[in-house]
Amino acid sequence: MMRTRPLKVALLGCGVVGSEVARIMTTHADDLAARIGAPVELAGVAVRRTGKAREGIDPALVTTDATALVKRGDIDVVVEVIGGIEPARTLITAAFEHGASVVSANKALLAQDGAALHAAAGEHGKDLYYEAAVAGAIPLIRPLRESLAGDKVNRVLGIVNGTTNFILDKMDSTGAGYQEALDEATALGYAEADPTADVEGFDAAAKAAILAGIAFHTRVRLDDVYREGMTEVTAADFRSAKEMGCTIKLLAICERSKDGTSVTARVHPAMIPLSHPLASVRGAYNAVFVESDAAGQLMFYGPGAGGSPTASAVLGDLVAVCRNRLNGSTGPGESAYADLTVSPMGEVVTRYHISLDVADKPGVLAQVATVFAEHGVSIDTVRQQGKDGEASLVVVTHRASDASLSGTVEALRKLDTVRGVASIMRVEGE
Amino acid sequence: MMRTRPLKVALLGCGVVGSEVARIMTTHADDLAARIGAPVELAGVAVRRTGKAREGIDPALVTTDATALVKRGDIDVVVEVIGGIEPARTLITAAFEHGASVVSANKALLAQDGAALHAAAGEHGKDLYYEAAVAGAIPLIRPLRESLAGDKVNRVLGIVNGTTNFILDKMDSTGAGYQEALDEATALGYAEADPTADVEGFDAAAKAAILAGIAFHTRVRLDDVYREGMTEVTAADFRSAKEMGCTIKLLAICERSKDGTSVTARVHPAMIPLSHPLASVRGAYNAVFVESDAAGQLMFYGPGAGGSPTASAVLGDLVAVCRNRLNGSTGPGESAYADLTVSPMGEVVTRYHISLDVADKPGVLAQVATVFAEHGVSIDTVRQQGKDGEASLVVVTHRASDASLSGTVEALRKLDTVRGVASIMRVEGE
Repeated sequence: MMRTRPLKVALLGCGVVGSEVARIMTTHADDLAARIGAPVELAGVAVRRTGKAREGIDPALVTTDATALVKRGDIDVVVEVIGGIEPARTLITAAFEHGASVVSANKALLAQDGAALHAAAGEHGKDLYYEAAVAGAIPLIRPLRESLAGDKVNRVLGIVNGTTNFILDKMDSTGAGYQEALDEATALGYAEADPTADVEGFDAAAKAAILAGIAFHTRVRLDDVYREGMTEVTAADFRSAKEMGCTIKLLAICERSKDGTSVTARVHPAMIPLSHPLASVRGAYNAVFVESDAAGQLMFYGPGAGGSPTASAVLGDLVAVCRNRLNGSTGPGESAYADLTVSPMGEVVTRYHISLDVADKPGVLAQVATVFAEHGVSIDTVRQQGKDGEASLVVVTHRASDASLSGTVEALRKLDTVRGVASIMRVEGE
Repeated sequence: MMRTRPLKVALLGCGVVGSEVARIMTTHADDLAARIGAPVELAGVAVRRTGKAREGIDPALVTTDATALVKRGDIDVVVEVIGGIEPARTLITAAFEHGASVVSANKALLAQDGAALHAAAGEHGKDLYYEAAVAGAIPLIRPLRESLAGDKVNRVLGIVNGTTNFILDKMDSTGAGYQEALDEATALGYAEADPTADVEGFDAAAKAAILAGIAFHTRVRLDDVYREGMTEVTAADFRSAKEMGCTIKLLAICERSKDGTSVTARVHPAMIPLSHPLASVRGAYNAVFVESDAAGQLMFYGPGAGGSPTASAVLGDLVAVCRNRLNGSTGPGESAYADLTVSPMGEVVTRYHISLDVADKPGVLAQVATVFAEHGVSIDTVRQQGKDGEASLVVVTHRASDASLSGTVEALRKLDTVRGVASIMRVEGE
């Protein structure tokens, strides 16, 4: 049974994603209507500057007054694809107050203010959906929130930033250094002119906060996420990784502690074994591994960014929100009942690969090994290489806390025989 | 806000999956209650034989009268994990009539009678969910039905049977023949005593019907699915595949035609390039590739069977159905509005790898090539190998319809110089 009064959609932002959302809403109008049970109509498009011709969009719908658009009162769903904190936050809040549900692709805002936005949605009995905020078209929010709702998620481990994966993949396959690979990514349009948000891990950290919050039913804010970028990963690190049968990926890792009472969320480069499914994720693709009690290991793979993939996720949410509206219901809101402690990085337990430049003389290994032992960090393997009076020691540890490892490294730096700590890399996925 | 009156769940079947569902409902009761917004209570468990001790299940709940259980009238959700057509179909229908929603893991029933069951659910305003029916714990139904609801799916290509993937993986990695690999799978518990449903592709065909129906918004019944088992795949086929940089997988393939007006669904062994992500799916794991207009290529990977993974999917559905019930709403039902033509196998277009045993004399290749040309099948590569008066020809074609290829093979068999058609294998995933 088809309702004939259309559901009205206000689109905030008409860039790469927004224009694709508008295009699909027009070209696939019949399919969307059939799937929702009522037609959907683009009722307004808020942009920063008018005057630009926007293919397929009636110029009469275009406005620079986003506030007036969300406050019209007849809007059913606001689709926010502006990005950034303001004015997106104010507009979304106003949308709820004026009777609309919201579909957003805004990872930064959700990671920072997800709880307040969910509260506003709940207060007004509206939906807030944001599948597109994490890993583009890859269904992740819905599987975590709904498919795994009867399971206990213990770990989410993923490549959630395409730019950095492109760069690292390039370094891995060509032996290039970071700068060279970044330059190529920029030339090909995979990296922005200012790549900071990607290469310093800010983008991935926002996604980690969102994923951890949903996976563990606990509020995890951006500030709770430990973040380390990948600008200091070197060609030498890749050679070390290869010697261990590993590659290097920038990973977002959300983990429940062994005793189940606390969680951690972090973003940093890490070595992972070549046999791990994430190791073969190439180019700008994203992939997320989820480990849970009953389901075991699941992986979700696909394009993590781009106009069309992100629009696919936005439109999936739009259909769901419209259906809910016709049903007079809302989908699952925030679930933070578990309220677990979010532990700092020091409590993270993992393995480490440490390269030390040391004096090439007897007794150095004994000194170094003693420092590890004193800090309770157990050594798995050590490899010594001598070269012209200098030598290097590569130590791979068993699992130890980040705090213990930091203490170990601090003490190592004080040894006369240790000339420098060339690199420290975590080893994950084993 | 927690409702205190519990939602009552009737469990039909208490085998490997059912007992795990019951166990998780008990041990994770608080989490389920928090996620649903009301406690859930196991109100009855229907089994074939009582008397067996069932750990963690109150014997007072156990009954052999499944019919009376679903007709009690106070049951909110019936979880059907019996499998098979009857009595499952009658029980599910009765459940709807008596006010319950249904969560099922029954692929055979859904593939055969999905439309009628959805109609019964709709008539009574109840939910019918069945994530567990396809690929165990891997979220597939929900992503296809909801996450991709605003997109246009063109292709679903997957490994949806763990038993056959275990056997083929074993043949690939050890060079074993089919029987030897099957024996190992049986010994390790990956194959049942009667492996017919798996190795002849019946299980995968049921899943293909379900996936195609959801992906294309069109009713696809089990009878519409072309099915070819993998019992005739030989060690020689794997050697041929390796020479082409391929491996062999039993694939379920659901495709929309180029012009968009028809669809096909089929299950058969096929060569796929080693570079394709499905090629590296090992052991009993499942993985499904989905290609859509906007999202591009997505992959979903995980354990495709087993008590715990299947229970995870059942419980995810249980939480969703319970939430809908509290909301007074229902989730998305059957969507078959597109009503596309389901074309027969003859219209499928793909590539082929054909091995012919031929007479070792001049002019054979010309004869063979003429037959291909007469049937409009274009040859990509040919390789000739001579051995003691006999010779073999390996032909790889460009894309051609299955009907054209069948015609070609029929004509080839009539050539005096062709001693036999050693194997015909489709080539997919390129």
